[in-house]
Amino acid sequence: MTTTDVHTADSAQDAIEERLIRNVIQSFDNCENPRLKYLMQALVRHTHAFIREVRLTESEWNTAISFLTQVGHITDDRRQEFILLSDVLGASMQTINVNNEAYGDATEATVFGPFFVDDAPRIDNGGDIAGGAPGQPCWVEGTVRDTDGAPIPNARIEVWEADEDGFYDVQYGDDRVTGRAHLFSDAEGGFRFWGLTPTPYPIPHDGPVGRMLEATGRSPMRASHLHFMVSAPGQRTLVTHIFVRGDELLASDTVFGVKESLVKDFVAQEPGTPAPDGRELNGASWARARFDIVLAPDH
Amino acid sequence: MTTTDVHTADSAQDAIEERLIRNVIQSFDNCENPRLKYLMQALVRHTHAFIREVRLTESEWNTAISFLTQVGHITDDRRQEFILLSDVLGASMQTINVNNEAYGDATEATVFGPFFVDDAPRIDNGGDIAGGAPGQPCWVEGTVRDTDGAPIPNARIEVWEADEDGFYDVQYGDDRVTGRAHLFSDAEGGFRFWGLTPTPYPIPHDGPVGRMLEATGRSPMRASHLHFMVSAPGQRTLVTHIFVRGDELLASDTVFGVKESLVKDFVAQEPGTPAPDGRELNGASWARARFDIVLAPDH
Ligand SMILES: [Fe+2]
Ligand SMILES: [Fe+2]
Repeated sequence: MTTTDVHTADSAQDAIEERLIRNVIQSFDNCENPRLKYLMQALVRHTHAFIREVRLTESEWNTAISFLTQVGHITDDRRQEFILLSDVLGASMQTINVNNEAYGDATEATVFGPFFVDDAPRIDNGGDIAGGAPGQPCWVEGTVRDTDGAPIPNARIEVWEADEDGFYDVQYGDDRVTGRAHLFSDAEGGFRFWGLTPTPYPIPHDGPVGRMLEATGRSPMRASHLHFMVSAPGQRTLVTHIFVRGDELLASDTVFGVKESLVKDFVAQEPGTPAPDGRELNGASWARARFDIVLAPDH
Repeated sequence: MTTTDVHTADSAQDAIEERLIRNVIQSFDNCENPRLKYLMQALVRHTHAFIREVRLTESEWNTAISFLTQVGHITDDRRQEFILLSDVLGASMQTINVNNEAYGDATEATVFGPFFVDDAPRIDNGGDIAGGAPGQPCWVEGTVRDTDGAPIPNARIEVWEADEDGFYDVQYGDDRVTGRAHLFSDAEGGFRFWGLTPTPYPIPHDGPVGRMLEATGRSPMRASHLHFMVSAPGQRTLVTHIFVRGDELLASDTVFGVKESLVKDFVAQEPGTPAPDGRELNGASWARARFDIVLAPDH
């Protein structure tokens, strides 16, 4: 195995740079955990290949140290700027890809995001997750099945989303719990609930990651989406979103979460159209979407 | 240019992973600063190549996020754990290599380290940098020349080092200034000063970087050294150390700073041996070392 495929114009200089890489790799030779050893040695190879390829200047190295320091200092219990950084570099999505290889017609996974909360309220099938958050009511229904097509009853379905202003409840700065819930699929694997029609929102962009996006001409906007996490015994837990067909941000989602198979029709309903469960909508417009979920086996 | 040379056993899976990389690279296409655009796109290529090659698990990704968060939180005005991390991965030394390509017989550079202070006291040639710090007195002398062999008078020479217990003054927790000074070469390019014979010390290892070294079976020890930074108009500023020949840590310096050309004889002197400047050493043993410096032209 060569340690790198980068070469300068000067073979003496190459020798100096390559000797350093060998020394750093060797320094991990006594690591007793073989996976950790492999990870560290691979990290060294890729990090050094980057530095050599771009001929990183000392001033750029200083900027990188200062940027990481700022990312560290803005990160606290409520804000995780390192995850944001991983997200906007596509590193989060690539990790999802690597760990959720395509399996038959199983539903594709996408990024988890920073806004999941562990103890969201339970609702019954047909209940409302909005909890009073503002937005257009949206009826979402579907089924949970395995890759053989058999219904999965009692699957746990976590759903969470931003309000129409693009804010999750944890961003309100108070203790309200809105736009999130969990429910269970019924005996036929079916589920249904009221939520809000998803709208686009920016990732938090008042910190170093936002400044990087600005400096590189990128937008902080995420395509409109509704988060799902679906789990059932014997099945691989699915973390995903559904996206809104026609959203102009589908091609430029800033965390690269969009997959064509996850783009769904959110069908607008004229004011006055009767709701599937007889809910009284007081003349408001509403929407409906369908999401049929297939879980891969857990092995 | 291919975006990566990693391949899985499954071409559909490869296509998903490679499409993501293309999308992330494209997201930087509107960056108006061409160097920044190139750096970010290269960073994306190398980061994704790492994730794909090692098939990074979600649990390992979580560990990495948590590790970086800890590095961020221990970093403050007095402690820079990101620099330490860069140092122990050899990334700092590789950046030095890339920016200080060999030029004739110019003295080689090495890592800067975290212990330099801007306003160290000035001493005259022949003065003492120890400032009362404990350790064996050591006479250091040499010349500063250019790559044509011409002496460089009035070069600014910053020197700094740990005491015999391995501590720099900034680690004492008080305001003492010891083990550091600056002086200027004389009309013939010569310099000489009293310092301390260098001894080994560990990098700060009570934080996340120390725990990583421990987990990977690595030592936090640096080979004994004395820091130099030498600058003169028209010359490339030299940041380097000299190391002590015979030090058993030369082959395992934890920041990979050792270069053979920088290893010098620190010649032990019997108690009672007269000092070169007539200093009264009260029967103490002392040492002497020579360091002839060659600065590369600044272009
Ligand atoms: Fe979200
Ligand atoms: Fe040092």
